[in-house]
Amino acid sequence: MTRIGRPRGKTDTRNVILGAARRLFADAGYDKTSVRDVAAAAGVDPAMIRHYFGSKVELFRATMGWPFEPADIAARVTAGDRGGDIGERLTRVFFEAWEQPASRAPLLAILRGAATHEESANLVRQFIQGQVYAHIATALAAPDAELRIDLAMSQLLGIAYLRHILRVEPVASTPVEELIERIAPIVCRHLTP
Amino acid sequence: MTRIGRPRGKTDTRNVILGAARRLFADAGYDKTSVRDVAAAAGVDPAMIRHYFGSKVELFRATMGWPFEPADIAARVTAGDRGGDIGERLTRVFFEAWEQPASRAPLLAILRGAATHEESANLVRQFIQGQVYAHIATALAAPDAELRIDLAMSQLLGIAYLRHILRVEPVASTPVEELIERIAPIVCRHLTP
Repeated sequence: MTRIGRPRGKTDTRNVILGAARRLFADAGYDKTSVRDVAAAAGVDPAMIRHYFGSKVELFRATMGWPFEPADIAARVTAGDRGGDIGERLTRVFFEAWEQPASRAPLLAILRGAATHEESANLVRQFIQGQVYAHIATALAAPDAELRIDLAMSQLLGIAYLRHILRVEPVASTPVEELIERIAPIVCRHLTP
Repeated sequence: MTRIGRPRGKTDTRNVILGAARRLFADAGYDKTSVRDVAAAAGVDPAMIRHYFGSKVELFRATMGWPFEPADIAARVTAGDRGGDIGERLTRVFFEAWEQPASRAPLLAILRGAATHEESANLVRQFIQGQVYAHIATALAAPDAELRIDLAMSQLLGIAYLRHILRVEPVASTPVEELIERIAPIVCRHLTP
């Protein structure tokens, strides 16, 4: 039975908010978009957004389909000293995320989506330039910290591309521990002056 | 004026051959597909394929949209000794290709296409596992040469993804010479035991 003109359900409201947020974040940028702007564009009360998503950063994360709590990841990567270990921790967190089917699927969707949709690329770019740098660059304490993070990420994302998108052998079926062993020193070298 | 039933022009024939080749290479694989198979699928004489494309490997390259002569690239990368220089040469050839608009456009199309189309990913995978390994792995003379090539390529493709697809700053506008200086030692380290 098709219901016509039924009242908006929870999923609908959530999706309308996500759609409006995706558009505004991509067009105006994360910094210039307020929860109030998104609420107005979606035709809901700002309280509704806080009810469904919590903070603005959480809303942004949901918009991208990012499957983690950013502060959580940042805490795991930057835990402890500022020394060479940060590269190893970043590599480990990265591979763990990609090896779990529950997080691999959304990560793959982000990597594929950004490759072909300008709006998605825009969101990912803002996520990196905002969230990632903010959380990791301070832990590095290097003047070129952001470029170093880009180079480290390029090594890691490149592996994800070859292993999970192209599925090129032998890297597609190399045991993850061997990859971590080979890649962690490279990521360390990128990150630490 | 719309022309109905006009005889096949040169471009049509070329495109019909390319379409048939793309399908067969993706489905049956490069090794198991002969020029004769492609001719049969396209409904043309094998001589026609040789006329338009030359060899089978040239046909494959055209199918992918690969903008270079593979043997040419291989010669430039593997020229000279087997030492650490191969990483520097590979890095330089890679960045030169991506910095020229004429070759950047088709390379970008391949990177994007493979991210979202299984058939394109399949072609790129065969290109790497066939052409790239064949040309570079022998120059490395290491038992794990193919994995080393994968890791080096992942570093380079990851940069292309961040710089040209996500266009993340600062890596999107870092001068290419600075990138080569930072990346070449990493690619060397991946390639040479």
